[in-house]
Amino acid sequence: MRVDFFWPGRTKRPELRALEDFYLGRIRLLADGRVVVTPAARGLDEREKARILEIEAQGLEKRWKDDYIICLSDEGQDMTSAEFARFLAARDREGRRLGFVVGGFLGLAERILRRADLRLAVSKMTLSHELCRVVLLEQVYRSLTILQGRRYAK
Amino acid sequence: MRVDFFWPGRTKRPELRALEDFYLGRIRLLADGRVVVTPAARGLDEREKARILEIEAQGLEKRWKDDYIICLSDEGQDMTSAEFARFLAARDREGRRLGFVVGGFLGLAERILRRADLRLAVSKMTLSHELCRVVLLEQVYRSLTILQGRRYAK
Repeated sequence: MRVDFFWPGRTKRPELRALEDFYLGRIRLLADGRVVVTPAARGLDEREKARILEIEAQGLEKRWKDDYIICLSDEGQDMTSAEFARFLAARDREGRRLGFVVGGFLGLAERILRRADLRLAVSKMTLSHELCRVVLLEQVYRSLTILQGRRYAK
Repeated sequence: MRVDFFWPGRTKRPELRALEDFYLGRIRLLADGRVVVTPAARGLDEREKARILEIEAQGLEKRWKDDYIICLSDEGQDMTSAEFARFLAARDREGRRLGFVVGGFLGLAERILRRADLRLAVSKMTLSHELCRVVLLEQVYRSLTILQGRRYAK
């Protein structure tokens, strides 16, 4: 299975960054996974939200071909871990490369959300974007262990 | 607002432990919050699940009086962050002390889940219990900032 994780700008909080690396390492034992850090808008005031999101959208789009794009959003569809594992397996059988997208501090441009093949909610609650990245990686790792019938901590 | 977090056994992964401390520190700027680590069953094989959960249940119950107990469970009720903030505010107006509970590796005894005033799902997906603790603390912190009209990272 080929799974890419796209996000504008590196995860800054060191503990979350370390967890990202940890779960990515686990994922790579079971699948072809990588994190692709796309350009984050710099030097703009937060009030210029539309411009920031547009810059970050362009950086994301450049990296996609015909990937099956899944944007994380608290307004997206929710799934149990078992449903999520089946969902990943089905896309893999179709030969699609999966691309997960988590926005930056201000989220994602509407255009990117519309482009998504799926909007996925790991929580109905709004998580910080950096914590959301970690939860996503943990769930993808969990799914891979479910699919391969391995034991993984609850 | 008085908010207690109960869990059997310390959180082991250092990054998650550091995040726990970080969010607890933030919570304590806005409310009377503490983490109470109750005894974890030791030296038992994982196959003795019922016994482990019973030992941990006793350790938890000892610490509660008439607290409003909220057990985290992926089969619990889900809420948006705004709904969760209103829920906390309502309990606080009733003068109830809130006690959140996240189980250990094997979860919580059925008896504890039945005792709960509410079962809350921060995700329909099954998170590792240590990651669940961090997500919970982050959400309580987020709620407190919502209630106090403060700005907090998305």
